[in-house]
Amino acid sequence: MRKIAKIMGGAALISALTMLAPATTMAQDVAMVPDPDLATQNIFNTLAFLIGGFLVMWMAAGFAMLEAGFVRTKNVSMQCLKNIMLYSVAGIMFWIIGYNMIYGGSSAYFGGFHLPYGAPLNPTVDTISGLAEEGFNYSEYSDWFFQMVFCATTASIVSGTVAERIKFWPFIIFTCFLTAIFYPIVASWEWGGGFLDAMGFSDFAGSTLVHSTGGWAALIGAIMLGARKGKYGPDGRVNPMPGSSMPLATLGVFILWLGWFGFNGASQLAMGTISDADSIAKIFVNTNLAAAAGVVMAVIYMQLRYKKIDLTMALNGALAGLVAITAEPLTPSVPVAMLVGALGSLLAMLTIPLLDKFKIDDVVGAIPVHLVAGIFGTLAVAFTNSEVSFMPQLIGVIATGVFVSIASAIIWGLMKYTIGIRVSEEVEMDGLDVHEIGVASYPEFVQS
Amino acid sequence: MRKIAKIMGGAALISALTMLAPATTMAQDVAMVPDPDLATQNIFNTLAFLIGGFLVMWMAAGFAMLEAGFVRTKNVSMQCLKNIMLYSVAGIMFWIIGYNMIYGGSSAYFGGFHLPYGAPLNPTVDTISGLAEEGFNYSEYSDWFFQMVFCATTASIVSGTVAERIKFWPFIIFTCFLTAIFYPIVASWEWGGGFLDAMGFSDFAGSTLVHSTGGWAALIGAIMLGARKGKYGPDGRVNPMPGSSMPLATLGVFILWLGWFGFNGASQLAMGTISDADSIAKIFVNTNLAAAAGVVMAVIYMQLRYKKIDLTMALNGALAGLVAITAEPLTPSVPVAMLVGALGSLLAMLTIPLLDKFKIDDVVGAIPVHLVAGIFGTLAVAFTNSEVSFMPQLIGVIATGVFVSIASAIIWGLMKYTIGIRVSEEVEMDGLDVHEIGVASYPEFVQS
Amino acid sequence: MRKIAKIMGGAALISALTMLAPATTMAQDVAMVPDPDLATQNIFNTLAFLIGGFLVMWMAAGFAMLEAGFVRTKNVSMQCLKNIMLYSVAGIMFWIIGYNMIYGGSSAYFGGFHLPYGAPLNPTVDTISGLAEEGFNYSEYSDWFFQMVFCATTASIVSGTVAERIKFWPFIIFTCFLTAIFYPIVASWEWGGGFLDAMGFSDFAGSTLVHSTGGWAALIGAIMLGARKGKYGPDGRVNPMPGSSMPLATLGVFILWLGWFGFNGASQLAMGTISDADSIAKIFVNTNLAAAAGVVMAVIYMQLRYKKIDLTMALNGALAGLVAITAEPLTPSVPVAMLVGALGSLLAMLTIPLLDKFKIDDVVGAIPVHLVAGIFGTLAVAFTNSEVSFMPQLIGVIATGVFVSIASAIIWGLMKYTIGIRVSEEVEMDGLDVHEIGVASYPEFVQS
Repeated sequence: MRKIAKIMGGAALISALTMLAPATTMAQDVAMVPDPDLATQNIFNTLAFLIGGFLVMWMAAGFAMLEAGFVRTKNVSMQCLKNIMLYSVAGIMFWIIGYNMIYGGSSAYFGGFHLPYGAPLNPTVDTISGLAEEGFNYSEYSDWFFQMVFCATTASIVSGTVAERIKFWPFIIFTCFLTAIFYPIVASWEWGGGFLDAMGFSDFAGSTLVHSTGGWAALIGAIMLGARKGKYGPDGRVNPMPGSSMPLATLGVFILWLGWFGFNGASQLAMGTISDADSIAKIFVNTNLAAAAGVVMAVIYMQLRYKKIDLTMALNGALAGLVAITAEPLTPSVPVAMLVGALGSLLAMLTIPLLDKFKIDDVVGAIPVHLVAGIFGTLAVAFTNSEVSFMPQLIGVIATGVFVSIASAIIWGLMKYTIGIRVSEEVEMDGLDVHEIGVASYPEFVQS
Repeated sequence: MRKIAKIMGGAALISALTMLAPATTMAQDVAMVPDPDLATQNIFNTLAFLIGGFLVMWMAAGFAMLEAGFVRTKNVSMQCLKNIMLYSVAGIMFWIIGYNMIYGGSSAYFGGFHLPYGAPLNPTVDTISGLAEEGFNYSEYSDWFFQMVFCATTASIVSGTVAERIKFWPFIIFTCFLTAIFYPIVASWEWGGGFLDAMGFSDFAGSTLVHSTGGWAALIGAIMLGARKGKYGPDGRVNPMPGSSMPLATLGVFILWLGWFGFNGASQLAMGTISDADSIAKIFVNTNLAAAAGVVMAVIYMQLRYKKIDLTMALNGALAGLVAITAEPLTPSVPVAMLVGALGSLLAMLTIPLLDKFKIDDVVGAIPVHLVAGIFGTLAVAFTNSEVSFMPQLIGVIATGVFVSIASAIIWGLMKYTIGIRVSEEVEMDGLDVHEIGVASYPEFVQS
Repeated sequence: MRKIAKIMGGAALISALTMLAPATTMAQDVAMVPDPDLATQNIFNTLAFLIGGFLVMWMAAGFAMLEAGFVRTKNVSMQCLKNIMLYSVAGIMFWIIGYNMIYGGSSAYFGGFHLPYGAPLNPTVDTISGLAEEGFNYSEYSDWFFQMVFCATTASIVSGTVAERIKFWPFIIFTCFLTAIFYPIVASWEWGGGFLDAMGFSDFAGSTLVHSTGGWAALIGAIMLGARKGKYGPDGRVNPMPGSSMPLATLGVFILWLGWFGFNGASQLAMGTISDADSIAKIFVNTNLAAAAGVVMAVIYMQLRYKKIDLTMALNGALAGLVAITAEPLTPSVPVAMLVGALGSLLAMLTIPLLDKFKIDDVVGAIPVHLVAGIFGTLAVAFTNSEVSFMPQLIGVIATGVFVSIASAIIWGLMKYTIGIRVSEEVEMDGLDVHEIGVASYPEFVQS
């Protein structure tokens, strides 16, 4: 979808440059109003990436708060450290390798791999020559920033699942591989003009490319690590391990919800025409109401099923709705967007007991939310976008799953049988904060 | 004011289209610089709604944190759940009914009620035909998003007042009525071109239409519910029930303050001309300094009156200043804006003991902040905007109060005498989190 | 740098007005695309100030959360109160005096001091006449808002260092002097076109003018106040006094990181041309990766040096990286920006034991972060911007240090020997919340 959006923008641009009639895909009376001049379009496009980018950057704080709220007090400092460190590492890795792996091979515009040393990006020149030749009309730095925060989001998804028992450095090493290589490879298949793009796969803002990539990596990590001590009793009982702070988790979800307007909205990749700005606006509405429907679905389901309304489910319902709509937030009508969000939420909730059955211990529920709702959202595009068919969607889901699972298993496995990925039982019981961080999260509050 | 702003925008547009002289209300030398082209204006206008909209959406998180900080630990999870649920419900209700109730009947542009099924909004076509015919030049989706978050804000105001003793579902049912019917009716009187608009009532961003609407609904709810057990002793003593977390409450106020730049700024409803952008900038300055004056007034008042500076008063002082300036953040000079904020804050502080006198238990102080400062701010417009007179302002305040109070009383009352609105004494003592949510807010911290 | 940016904008503008060839500093093929029309440029410029401004305003919440997390529970409410109060006071002082002190004397456009009474800013007229005559093309209100939040940031820096033992009112009085006089004087030397600007000093967004100004004021305050009781044992031992909430401190850093995109990005002071928008995008990338490098450096340093990774160091590493890149986020290539961030972080970490050696008790680490990294960042500009030489940078650093230190010492000293600046030993032991605020931060949690 991204690729298509870019190419369409280019076509419209060239037609404007050559004084041809405006693109015929627009409605008759839109065509009566000429597009803004090229420089104005460039600035709007760049601005969309920058605003979208800082909103998605803010999602890193959302994951940090969500996870800090969902882990137990003895591991909160560690969870905070992992989140700020993974965001940092993701940015550096994406600079050194990731961005070029996605876009480097597919377009003369990018001129092969941009090495991060010297003058890799010469945006003033590139933008305009690209503009004239290929229809890319924005600051490449702004695009880099926007793409980078997507890469970081992928890594954020993993940290919640494997919390409370993974060692710090193995987690960071895995993050390096994920953000430098795994995610960029998957993203290149579609957004870099690779085989999924050629096949007709469509993933507007990354239900599969971002969320299920993170979800698969998390799932394999959780399996490799094993469950937290005491989570699953010998008699098959599941012992709840409630998180330390519900208001922080709630704050995290509100942050993520806010950030998602940037995540989905700016994935339109352009704001320089009436049509693009209107598309972003429709994406805001669909994104918001898919999340809202996810919350309402979770609350009603909890009420009917358990007679109590678990707050954590309502929070994960919002996120599942957001993940589900991410694959196609533009084409569905608003009621359909709500349906997608509601079903994503329902599927996530139905998955949670399943994971427990297989003793897969996902501390924050990232697998149901990002993997399951991500797969559902991607497949649903076949029904909400008339230009997309089911098979490419399924192939995209499977290809991502197979590749990320194998790649993750190799890295997690290599570390497991060398440096080890799991803390000792003593560290796990005492909490990672004491042993690995040396700073308690709430040192003055007496713990029960 | 909104309506007027729209019509003026339309007039300027038509004059530009017909190559007439620019609107004569602008200064001579502004007229020397032609406005941007229509498409550029459209994108700027849409962008103002989107940025303003996500900032106001963020206020939902602000209310959640403020209220989570102000309620006692045993009710924090419930307060988080109510806040994320009410924001979700408000969006869905505003989609199904609310938006159309406000705007549906007043303008050919909206073509009667837009049913939410099928293709209710066809913005590409609508925008441009509307543009040519009536001067609306923005994406209708962006307007919907911006108006929706105002509706949600109205509901957020109620949840704080009635906290710690209201049942979950009755609160949600009330939220449905408030966001689907009550708020839209009040808003339609002014922003939908109804009788208050015709009369000359002016409420730029909603001191009355949003804040006092929420405030009246909260007041009636508090009266119907009665005070929390133990709040008012038999001897007339008021027992303080301190909130669980002051830093979260402080965070909430900072979030609300930030969001208010969108709330007031984007209520200019346009950013496509130098004049509109400059107005938004002035609104930012006035909004910020009214809040600042509210804080300073509260701190000085506390110091002089009580010799201690209650943080919760400083926080509510900021909010009262913000509510007071909301009715007219554009026309007053900056010092006058500060005066409005300071007086709003003072009035809110003077109201708090009054409420206690009548044993009206307002957990977070929403009635002083949103209702009292909202009324004051609305009446003050007669003195800060030379085109507004006092009587229409008073009538607007009274009409809103009468309608919202009666409507709220009917719904609260119907529920009170059927399904019940208040939890049992046992649930209240144990806290709503245990009984209705099943998830403690801070399960590991030992409570005193 | 700011001044230069403004003048360049003006030159480009005038050439556009007179239909001359575009500015020759731009690359050949950029010149092929004409700039947007003047009104569009004006709106983009204003919008950059508004978005940048609300992001920097949000940093006030970041400082509040950082400090609330780093002080002990008994002083958290007070720290929240100080932060919301100082932001309020800074805005009002900057309105009454500060802004005019910076800009009033240096330009006919500003027409001498703008008194805050009457009609000090007439932006509609000013903007356009200024535009024609001098090349300022934005809403002056938006500029005021943007400059004001910088002034507030300066004051925020001080509050963390002097926490847990300073009296409320003396701190507020100092804030008045800092924001009304000290900061505006320093800023006027450069951004008001004063002697540092004339000398070739360069400080893009304020490593010296904002951060080290705050840092010097904090340092003198910490010396004048003395350390907290029990911080330094008689045997020279340093007793750690861990902060109350690591997740809140983490949230604070994420907020500051987000806000910094506005701080550095909008300090480009224009977004109305392709070149300006591209510069902002590059600043986003450099700012983000300098912070990321600061985190990674801190984490690796801690691991190697102490075998444990202190979360508070990682957080301060991010901030030190941000402060260091603030003096020049535009000209360095991305790897150089990372180097600047990493070295800023390292220097901050090396400073912390030094402060303890001199028994200077800096509660949150603001002196290493804002003063040391700020000085380093300013000096580093001589190596990252080919148009800047070392001596003016050094002189700027020294002049700021001498002036702010002396001015701060006078005010802190005058208060110390009259009204007193430090709370009594009893108040310090019990905590400021009980004695000065009367509201405990977390009243229900049992403290150890």
